[in-house]
Order: sequence, then C-alpha cells, then structure tokens
Amino acid sequence: MARLVMKFGGTSVADPDRIARVARLVAAERQAGCRTAVVVSAQSGETDRLVRLARACGGEELGPGFDDEYDVVVAAGEQVTTGLLALALRKMGVPARSWQNWQIPIRSDAAHAKARIEDIDAGPLGAAIDAGEVAVIPGFQAITAGQRITTLGRGGSDTSAVAVAAALGALRCDIYTDVDGVYTTDPRIVRYGEENALPGDPAMRHRARRLEKISYEEMLEMASLGAKVLQTRSVELAMAKGVRVRVLSSFVEPGDPNPGTIVCDEDEIVEKQVVSGVAYSRDEAKLTLLGVADTPGVAAEIFGRLAEAAINVDMIVQSQSRAEGRQNIVFTCPDRDAGRARDVLLSGTPKLDLEQVQVRRDVAKVSVIGIGMKSQVGVARTMFAALAAKGINIEAIATSEIKISVLIDAQYTELAVRALHTAYGLDAA
Amino acid sequence: MARLVMKFGGTSVADPDRIARVARLVAAERQAGCRTAVVVSAQSGETDRLVRLARACGGEELGPGFDDEYDVVVAAGEQVTTGLLALALRKMGVPARSWQNWQIPIRSDAAHAKARIEDIDAGPLGAAIDAGEVAVIPGFQAITAGQRITTLGRGGSDTSAVAVAAALGALRCDIYTDVDGVYTTDPRIVRYGEENALPGDPAMRHRARRLEKISYEEMLEMASLGAKVLQTRSVELAMAKGVRVRVLSSFVEPGDPNPGTIVCDEDEIVEKQVVSGVAYSRDEAKLTLLGVADTPGVAAEIFGRLAEAAINVDMIVQSQSRAEGRQNIVFTCPDRDAGRARDVLLSGTPKLDLEQVQVRRDVAKVSVIGIGMKSQVGVARTMFAALAAKGINIEAIATSEIKISVLIDAQYTELAVRALHTAYGLDAA
Repeated sequence: MARLVMKFGGTSVADPDRIARVARLVAAERQAGCRTAVVVSAQSGETDRLVRLARACGGEELGPGFDDEYDVVVAAGEQVTTGLLALALRKMGVPARSWQNWQIPIRSDAAHAKARIEDIDAGPLGAAIDAGEVAVIPGFQAITAGQRITTLGRGGSDTSAVAVAAALGALRCDIYTDVDGVYTTDPRIVRYGEENALPGDPAMRHRARRLEKISYEEMLEMASLGAKVLQTRSVELAMAKGVRVRVLSSFVEPGDPNPGTIVCDEDEIVEKQVVSGVAYSRDEAKLTLLGVADTPGVAAEIFGRLAEAAINVDMIVQSQSRAEGRQNIVFTCPDRDAGRARDVLLSGTPKLDLEQVQVRRDVAKVSVIGIGMKSQVGVARTMFAALAAKGINIEAIATSEIKISVLIDAQYTELAVRALHTAYGLDAA
Repeated sequence: MARLVMKFGGTSVADPDRIARVARLVAAERQAGCRTAVVVSAQSGETDRLVRLARACGGEELGPGFDDEYDVVVAAGEQVTTGLLALALRKMGVPARSWQNWQIPIRSDAAHAKARIEDIDAGPLGAAIDAGEVAVIPGFQAITAGQRITTLGRGGSDTSAVAVAAALGALRCDIYTDVDGVYTTDPRIVRYGEENALPGDPAMRHRARRLEKISYEEMLEMASLGAKVLQTRSVELAMAKGVRVRVLSSFVEPGDPNPGTIVCDEDEIVEKQVVSGVAYSRDEAKLTLLGVADTPGVAAEIFGRLAEAAINVDMIVQSQSRAEGRQNIVFTCPDRDAGRARDVLLSGTPKLDLEQVQVRRDVAKVSVIGIGMKSQVGVARTMFAALAAKGINIEAIATSEIKISVLIDAQYTELAVRALHTAYGLDAA
C-alpha cells in the first residue's frame, strides 16, 4: 500500500466544520488504502494574531536576538490544529494522532523565522502510518540540533509537506488549497463577460484554464514570478527530491471530482506547451541610476552593496549615457526594498560615482512561462507584438530558458495579462 | 545566590501591558540577586477558547481516547505565554529564554488531562539560571515517558511552579495572583459599611485580614474547603517537598510593598491561631437515604458504589430510623455529582435495600480552620453558639484535627461566615 502526504492550509482548517470536512477527505484516502500523513497549517488568522502578540511584547522590529522566542510563540498555532484534526478523525472512528516536530523529530538549521529543514527521521512516523494510524503533523516548523523551535517563514507548510513526503518516500504530496489547481493565469484577471457580474454568474466564467500537469521548472518560475499557489521553496525541494506534488481543492466532499494539477518532472509531460502560463507581480520597483562612471568595477560595487543589504535585484539593463564616459543602469527590486536600495547607493563609503538615482514604484512585471520555449523560436516576438498592439510600452526585459519577463507601467497589468493569455492560445473555449 | 521560582497566572499575563509589568517584577528579583525561573499560565480566556475548539472538533464529552489530543490543543496556550514573556524580558535587556516541558524535561504519568508530575530534570535548567538567564516555563503541563504532551488539570500551574521550585531547591516559590495574600476569609463577604458602596470607597474596607503566615495544613484545608487562592494539589506538593510558598499580588510595580502570605511549616509559626480562617463552599449537595436496611455491609456497599463512580463523599451522618431495623444515612458530595450519585444508588445490581433517596442542593458548607485547635477546647462550642445566635440550623457536622465544618441552608452562607469571623476574633481593627 502506498504512503500519501496530504497538506491543508489555514483557510481549510479555519473552523470546526472545515476541520470535519478535512477529516472526511483524509478518512476517504485511508479507506482507499493509503497510509496517510497529514500536514496542517495554523487556522487562518491565528498566525497573524500570534505575530501581533509577539511584536507587542518584543517590539515591532523583533529580529536577531528575538527570533527564537518569536518562533516559540508563532509555532503554537499549528500545534493546536494538529490536535483538533486528530480529535475530528477519532470522532469519525479513524485512528489518528498528532506528531509534534520534536516528537518525530524534524530538524532544521538554526536560522530562526526562516529556517530550512535538514533532516526528518521517518522511522517511527512511517511505522505508525503503516500500522493504519493517520499521522497529523504541524507544518511551518522544526527543531534545531539544540532542541529549540524554529519556523520556516511564511508559506512554509507547503515545504514541510514536501519534506515529509520525501522522507516517507510517499507516492505523492497532495496540497489542498482554496483553488482547484494551477491555472494558466490568475482567474480573477482574465474572464469573459461583464466586469461587474455577480460571483457565480455564468458571465463570470473565466478564460484561465486549469493545467493537468506542469513541470517543476515551470511551477518554480510561476511561484517566483507572482503566482501564489505554491511557495517557491516547496517547489525547489519537490524538484530536488523528485516528489510528485498535486495541487487540488479542499472545498469538496470525498468523491467529488477533484483532479487538481500534478507538478512533476518535465519528462512526464508529453505535450510541452510553448507557454503554459502568464504570471504577474505588482510588488516591483524600478531604479534608474543616471550618470554612472563608465569604469571597470563600478557595476560590481553597486550590486555588491545591494547584495550585502539582502536586496534581491531582478532585471538589470545597462545603457550608454549621453554624457562622455558615463552610463545609465536600470534594475528592479521588490517594492518594499526600493527606499532602502536608494539609501544604500547614495550613502556609504566610498561614495559611488553616479549622478542621480530615480525610483519608480508604479511598475509591474508580467511574465510568460513554458518549457516548450526551449525548442521554439519567435516566442518573444509574439509577446512584444501582443503588447505593442495594446500600446503598452516595455521598460525592461529579462529572459531565462523557460520564461520571458517584461516590466511595464502598473496600470496596464490586467490588459497585458489578458492580451498575452489570448496571444499564446491559453484562453478556455 | 539563591534560586527563586515566580509564578504568574492567566490574569497577570492577559495582555502585552500586563506581560511587561510581569517582566519588570522578574527583572527586579534578578537585579536583587535571585537566579530566577518563572512559571506562567496561558493568557486568561485562552484555555477556555482552546477547550471550546477541542470540544467542537472531538465532541462535547471527549474523555478517554481523546484526552491525549485534548492536551495537545490546550497546552499550546502556555507555550505562547512563555515566548511572549521571554520577548518582553529581552526587550528590557534581561537575558531570558523559554523552556518547553519537553526541553527540560518535566515528566508526568500518562493520566491525560489530570496528569501528575513525576520527575523534573533540573540540571540544564538550573545551570541556565545560575548563569544569569531567566528561564520561562509553561505551567499546567508535562510530557509522558512516551513523549506525549499531558496537562495537569485546571489550576495545575501552581503545582508546576511548586514542583519546579522543589527540583531547583529554590529558596521560595512566589505565586503572583490577583489577590495580595491569603485572607482570614473571602474579603467579598465580610466588609464594613454599606453593601452598595463603590469600589475604592473607604466604606468598602473589608474586615478580612491578610495572614502573614499560614501553615501547609491550614492552607490545604482552606483550599479543599473552597478558598480559591491556591490549588489543593500544589499545597500538598509544597508540604511534601518542604517548599516555602508565598502568595502575593501581581498588580504592583517593583518596589511597591507586597509582603503577601507565606505558606510554610507549622514550626515556623510562633503564634498559633485557634482559628486562622473561615472558608465556605456552595458547591455542595446533601443526599438523605431513608430507610436503609440496618444490616452489616450496607454502608460499605453504598459508599463503595459511590467511590467506584469517582464521587467524592464528604460529610456522613448516620441515624436511627423510626422503622424497625431501618436507619437513615445523610452525606454530602459536590453539587455537580448529586444527580449521578442518586442514579448510582437507585440503579445497579444487586438493588440496594433502601426506601428513598432525597437530594437537597441549596446547601452550603462553612468551615473554621486553625492549627491552634489541636490544643484548645471549646472551639466547636463557640462555632455552634455563634450560629445559634443567628438562628442558623446545622444539618451536618464534620471535624478534623484542625477544622470544623457545618452544613447549613445556602441562603445563610454570608451571615454564617460573618458571624464566625467575628466570633473567633478575626475582624480587622
């Protein structure tokens, strides 16, 4: 019999009724013959409540010297959910027990509030589920070699689930969430009919299509580029460990159709789409450095300083300035880091030899992603033509083997996503 | 330098402001040279919230087969408080860390939801506080030999604190609470002046006096007889381990006068009061068994059945019935168990040979307690005379070496307490 890991997020366990539904879904998989471990998040809203309490007691900033106790506070949320789900399962007559991280153990490094799982002892846990008992495990957390509680950072429950699936050699890791799979793009943006139609109105039927399968690489790009279905780190881990992940809806009853989307190796995907999806992110800022001295090592100094400040730079464009011996450099970074990036470049010693730093925050990044791109020409041309036809100006371009991203004025985000979704033939019939 | 254990209950840590005050009190003791461990409860209301969630998921009754996961849910409340207090201490610059029960470990038996602490490894914990770091420990919980989480039952945080103090060989265990010590009786009942005076009004000055010292035995009787200052089990443990306990107010700032009440060995108390306190309990029911067969073994059968049903019988009075070969038996038990006690006696096989069971629930137990009673005559006479002077009828009497309890009509509870408080010279000047 196969081992299966199921993961349920905060909205799926938000109240006792939803926990009962989760218990029914788990019971059905066990009934179908799976040896089941379940990874759960804290009830929605609970982590935020605990974070607020921790900040109120430890100071708004917290940070190093506080993170270990922040983790103690925040980790309590998932412990509660494990007990509640175990109770709900037993009430249905299903043998179940909670396994706290220290009981398994699941070990991580000591980078509190953003720890990485290093090792899971699957021995006793595996034996328990093989004996027919459902194991309920708190996601998002682990313990250090020194027995302290760590958390993995926001969204870390997906990563916990994939790590547990890898350790158990599970057939699959099913991530239950509030959408029923991975879509070609954000369904809220591309839809037929009136903008003002009521929810449930057939006029609201969206153009986005659920993908049956998507490769790890594509999912990784989509996650990094703004799609919020899976946390980036969990996809990286699934890819590294070869864990088949399925994204599916938690708002169903056992027996309802719920195929979801399989995230798997590229080789499993027969029909490789040139473009599988369109992603966007409004959390972008564009910094333009004017009149940068055109001497060797200046770019290294600029991006070295940003790296030291842990500012994640994305697109970089370099161009000749009109002034003799000067150039302009454009780059993007997360919007929240824009002010800090400017400060890093304008202050500090030695002073950087540049004339001006302009910050523009009303920009968005729109990307098209597809493994078929590797062997296809003209993909970029289609993108640029589609945007040009709508009169959308491209401010920067970044490409990888399987994605093309452009930076545009944020007010055209939806327009651009819709145009690209149509241009690459992704619209639902 | 001496080791000290400080314990703060749920109302003392109810919000971030109160947690900050607790941190100031802890910091002051450390500044004064104490090596400090702090035991905390869950924030007030939190345990109730978690119990409601657990019942909503596992069923209203829970009980065996559910209690282990109930404990997982409920124990999360104290974990949160430990992290919050550690954060508040660090914010003040005081080195501190939380110690979860599994990190110490504090071991108990496996009687989930009502576990008893069996063993505490004070090694690493003691070393940490001796190095100047405040240790913050969740009360009310422990782990089993099999690494499962247990809780000690309501009020168990006092017991945790005393057990930690015993393990650390602490100078004293300071129980901070919402009263400033142990009083001769419930201050809400005996006071001078108008019943309707506003709080803070000098007319409200109560007659009850704070005791400077009280012996373990007296405290134990007062706790069992209805005084809610300390949990009975914690006093038993303090007496068994010889831990000096101090009850004092948590609603003060460092430096404010806060002597509290010391609970200690009888030998430490020079002036032994004949009566140190008057306690009362309204959680009583009186059962009268009419026409019980006057044959050997009947009483054993009756009280054996009640014991099997875990019903705690208190006062017992036996009298001759008018009918030939018949007697009447009167006993009291906790009010919540009264219906179940009747069922146990009227059903079951073989059928008990008795004519009728009468249940009376509007009764109260009023008790006077004092170690001086051991060597004093006339204590009971004073009690009966004081009650008679107020026209209060006594329905049953129970005595021990250091206490006399009477059962009376519940409507006279306050009247009786006031009369006895005056009769034994306990009124404040």
